[in-house]
Amino acid sequence: MQAVGMVVEFNPFHNGHKYYVQQAKEQSGADVSVAVMSGNFTQRGEPTIVDKWQRTQAALANGVDLVVELPVFSACQPAHRFAAGALSILNELGVSTVAFGAEHPDWDFLSLVKASESFSDGDMKNYTATYATQFNSLLSAQTGVSLTDPNDILSFAYNKAAYDNGYQFDLMPIQRVGSDYHDERISGEVASASAIRKAITDGTDYSHTAPAEMLERLAEVQTVPSWQTLYPLLRNQLIQAPVEQLRQTYQMAEGLEYRMKDCAQRSLDFDHFIHGVKTKRYTFAHLLRLCLYTTLQITEEELAGHVAQPYIHILGFTKKGQEYLHQVKKQVEMPLFTKVDQDMKDELCALDYRAGKLYQTFTAVEQDLKHAPIILR
Amino acid sequence: MQAVGMVVEFNPFHNGHKYYVQQAKEQSGADVSVAVMSGNFTQRGEPTIVDKWQRTQAALANGVDLVVELPVFSACQPAHRFAAGALSILNELGVSTVAFGAEHPDWDFLSLVKASESFSDGDMKNYTATYATQFNSLLSAQTGVSLTDPNDILSFAYNKAAYDNGYQFDLMPIQRVGSDYHDERISGEVASASAIRKAITDGTDYSHTAPAEMLERLAEVQTVPSWQTLYPLLRNQLIQAPVEQLRQTYQMAEGLEYRMKDCAQRSLDFDHFIHGVKTKRYTFAHLLRLCLYTTLQITEEELAGHVAQPYIHILGFTKKGQEYLHQVKKQVEMPLFTKVDQDMKDELCALDYRAGKLYQTFTAVEQDLKHAPIILR
Repeated sequence: MQAVGMVVEFNPFHNGHKYYVQQAKEQSGADVSVAVMSGNFTQRGEPTIVDKWQRTQAALANGVDLVVELPVFSACQPAHRFAAGALSILNELGVSTVAFGAEHPDWDFLSLVKASESFSDGDMKNYTATYATQFNSLLSAQTGVSLTDPNDILSFAYNKAAYDNGYQFDLMPIQRVGSDYHDERISGEVASASAIRKAITDGTDYSHTAPAEMLERLAEVQTVPSWQTLYPLLRNQLIQAPVEQLRQTYQMAEGLEYRMKDCAQRSLDFDHFIHGVKTKRYTFAHLLRLCLYTTLQITEEELAGHVAQPYIHILGFTKKGQEYLHQVKKQVEMPLFTKVDQDMKDELCALDYRAGKLYQTFTAVEQDLKHAPIILR
Repeated sequence: MQAVGMVVEFNPFHNGHKYYVQQAKEQSGADVSVAVMSGNFTQRGEPTIVDKWQRTQAALANGVDLVVELPVFSACQPAHRFAAGALSILNELGVSTVAFGAEHPDWDFLSLVKASESFSDGDMKNYTATYATQFNSLLSAQTGVSLTDPNDILSFAYNKAAYDNGYQFDLMPIQRVGSDYHDERISGEVASASAIRKAITDGTDYSHTAPAEMLERLAEVQTVPSWQTLYPLLRNQLIQAPVEQLRQTYQMAEGLEYRMKDCAQRSLDFDHFIHGVKTKRYTFAHLLRLCLYTTLQITEEELAGHVAQPYIHILGFTKKGQEYLHQVKKQVEMPLFTKVDQDMKDELCALDYRAGKLYQTFTAVEQDLKHAPIILR
């Protein structure tokens, strides 16, 4: 059996995702599809609209054969680490092809990757601009190509991860269709995930944009999970922990511990807080991830330890997915498991477990310990 | 001018307190009354029903001339530390008498204190009974007197603090009247503070039990502040912080860090959590205080540093209270101030400031920084 791999968030799973899964299978000619999916927090560091189990259920009912979790130490990271973590798992799982959406699938991403090899962190020291903006300026000056669309940026990151690690699978960009990421309108059967999240918050109709299995779960959402709700926990950590301790937080740099503590003391709600913290130096996504690391009390050292010990947590599978697992599991070198046990929650999967406990702010459901995988017969 | 001092919580200020203030002034013959009052958290480690400013306002309107704050590092402590912290402030303020309620004002507390001098911590090593129970058994065996009523226990603690420190003021126990502390019924014009808190929660009438100035504030209370509401903050700290860090928390001993972390992981509400943590070894009050220390991330070392640097934060005064302050302030050696400034919030008053930020879970009012004292003309 040949597999096509995908890196996804499915937040929520919608008609565009369904089309993309079909295209990935058709265009690759694969027998089975494998999705590496963010858990309960997205790449932007935000809580997902429904939990990882509900999103897995919808994905399995709509063309995905195997869903595995992208651990929080890779999922909530800038594009290059997100991509590297995801592709290392797909490589372990022996996929033949990795498919991904791109705004410009015709670009030669590999040559862009090679052109960027000479860039160093020393080139990105303008403290009034984000790292991404400075990187893009360099790339644009050298190649004439500007990476500004989110899926193009990820496409670049996948190509870089595959190139750096010498992965043998094919990379298959697929043209993004329908609505673009930044488009917040709902029109037709394909809308962006962010447009659907907005529609849920606004109470406007989105029922034609997602399959039934997802719509049923979304109908149960009372309040869209957000940092507004998590803010009291973040605020208390920023106020109660000494700056020396906050400084140990992963990615807490350039005095941000003082700035965040000060804004937390003065801000009773998250909007006020995050706009107080924002500068030209950091994107909102970077700061939202930092909010997550702070609330989870993840240190630089702890994160490095987890990145060095990756694993494959199986969230769910179809019959075909199960057959594929059976075929590849002997070649898999990473720990591969379907249930988190008492020891794993404190050691191997500690960060995912703690992120799941934080997600219990939104749902009473235990997210990890002894949770069985979703099986679609 | 001669002053009578009182150690109070006024949670809320009720008719029994009003009577007690009158008695303290009459029986002592003092010209002015001074109350050292817990801030926004009580001796039991619980949030107060209304904030310290509202309780100060009611006290000043009902016979108290000067209200100063008992800092959280003394206020949220077992009886002997609570009493020692409070009396050190009253001594600084030069009071002639300290008045306090007692169930048995006729007892010779000083002789009980002297009898207990030979007790050592080594006598209290039965891990299936609380420290207080073991202490009381020893005292009872030696003197025939059993300290079981809460105000008797505090009376003992005031006598001990005065004796240990050689304070020169008179100690004046006043017979407790009306309702006893454990009595949760409302009958007549005097009810216990706990009975009134229960009446507010239950929605039963308590309007005849407190003066108008307090009733107005209580009428604005939507939900009685409690650990139910603070629990998500405590839970997140217990889940996210490593046990090595939790072990540094003030009073975290005998492996409680493991027990509390485990219960937090398994408990979605505070009742479930605290009953899971409870053993015969610790009282609920002890555990509630430990919840507070944990949420405020107070370490043993930090607490000791603050205890070594006491101060007098003036919350409010009448004209007479102001005159008295003017009379004594030259003799006061502790820092004495009416406003917390930017430096004080991070250094001298850091614990009170952080407790005030935690109390903002219940009210948007800034509790310390630049807050002016209440002045009753």
